[in-house]
Amino acid sequence: MTEILNGTPIADRVIASLKTRVEELKRHDIEPHLFLVQVGRNEAVETYVRAKIRRGAKIGIRVSHQILDENITYDDLKEEIARIARRDDVNGIMIENPLPKHLDFFKAVENIPYYKDVDGMTPTNQGMINLRNEFLTPATAASVTEILQGMNLPAGTTALIINRSPVVGRPLAMMLLNRDYTVTVCHSKTKDIKSLSRNSEVLVTAVGVPNFIDRSFVTENSIVVDVGINPVQDTIRGDANYEDLFGYVRAITPVPGGVGPITATLIMENTVRATEFQSTLSKG
Amino acid sequence: MTEILNGTPIADRVIASLKTRVEELKRHDIEPHLFLVQVGRNEAVETYVRAKIRRGAKIGIRVSHQILDENITYDDLKEEIARIARRDDVNGIMIENPLPKHLDFFKAVENIPYYKDVDGMTPTNQGMINLRNEFLTPATAASVTEILQGMNLPAGTTALIINRSPVVGRPLAMMLLNRDYTVTVCHSKTKDIKSLSRNSEVLVTAVGVPNFIDRSFVTENSIVVDVGINPVQDTIRGDANYEDLFGYVRAITPVPGGVGPITATLIMENTVRATEFQSTLSKG
Repeated sequence: MTEILNGTPIADRVIASLKTRVEELKRHDIEPHLFLVQVGRNEAVETYVRAKIRRGAKIGIRVSHQILDENITYDDLKEEIARIARRDDVNGIMIENPLPKHLDFFKAVENIPYYKDVDGMTPTNQGMINLRNEFLTPATAASVTEILQGMNLPAGTTALIINRSPVVGRPLAMMLLNRDYTVTVCHSKTKDIKSLSRNSEVLVTAVGVPNFIDRSFVTENSIVVDVGINPVQDTIRGDANYEDLFGYVRAITPVPGGVGPITATLIMENTVRATEFQSTLSKG
Repeated sequence: MTEILNGTPIADRVIASLKTRVEELKRHDIEPHLFLVQVGRNEAVETYVRAKIRRGAKIGIRVSHQILDENITYDDLKEEIARIARRDDVNGIMIENPLPKHLDFFKAVENIPYYKDVDGMTPTNQGMINLRNEFLTPATAASVTEILQGMNLPAGTTALIINRSPVVGRPLAMMLLNRDYTVTVCHSKTKDIKSLSRNSEVLVTAVGVPNFIDRSFVTENSIVVDVGINPVQDTIRGDANYEDLFGYVRAITPVPGGVGPITATLIMENTVRATEFQSTLSKG
């Protein structure tokens, strides 16, 4: 029997707790405010932006959205971010990825103060994870830990992460170490991913290739957490061949409905956490 | 035939290049200045401090040393570090570990500006490694990458690190990912370190137990990098049983004479790098 690791009930629990925290903030006349900065038009980005605005409204978080000219220079972008960052009524800032080719996403992000960096992409927030002092963590990585928490795995459990980006693989590796996992990170240069994968109890895949993970990567004891979001015709597929793995592995996240809904919610949680932190700061 | 991975020739090359860089700085009337902050007396710490002063003198780096009262409060320590950090003539600051029990080392370190944090222990410097933008990296982790660089191993090579601290294991894991290794981090909660170890091409051990690593952890293809510095009677031993492994594994670092000499030198390199960076800043 394969356990299906649904993300929606976890996301719903997070949303319920966020509503309570937002009510508490509003009793002190504070409304959490997330500011999304987009550069140039991009249909996929705008779809996600609309989803964030809806989700924010549901929780009581104001979500603003600004689209900057696609030809903006780095210096002008930097100034614009600094201007937004100085606003006391803005608690969280997120730069929508991708940026036009002439702009470096991570360089742009460094202009966000770490305590408003709800995407967890500044050096400080990344480093705080390494120092076991998690504050605003990248939402995708955090949602994997939320999914796994429900399984109550023993300390030392082995996890393989196929992804080494600062968005998923690296922060997740450090977060899993913080939770006593034994962690391996592999990537496109790794020689024998299948054998590493079969020797790991947990497999986290963020490759971006539909049906990449089939039975040859897993055993009957594998727990598969699928971070892939791959458009295939009119639908979304993960990295795993769900039909092939379901009924065979120990547990698997569906796509959609697994990691995705939690990730979207954790950006809101980071916004609320940032707001709470800033309200403490302003109290001195 | 086991290759002996001596650190001294690598350290000597680094020292030679540092001398040239320091001469260049001195031509602009800049003398790199490393400031060591110690809290309470500690014989072992003071032995290392004297070694740093000697090494600095050899390269042309001024090394200052201040011993604060062991009962200093956190707030007073914070103020003292801030006072040192504001000095334009201080380029690098290092808080000697361990601190007395009432003080938190990592909290203390956060008061050092990242560009003077030559120990690589601030969140910013840790996070910059994750973001593939290495600046001032922890010296021990960096010295392991220096040792391995000489072996020209192919991309994807598997490395097991037995240590998950922010001093060694975590930054090293990220630095090895930056260099295309496939990286596993394990620790005291890991169930079968021996089998992970035998399946890895590189084994980095920082356990602090003499003779912990014997032949049961390795194969004839293992490359053993021994970070352990364990006093045994009047001598220093690594984590590896060198006599047992020598002649069997592919390569091994001796202790002393392996990672140690490079680590001591890389703290000096970080001081020079910090000085160069600050001189660029002051030029505007």
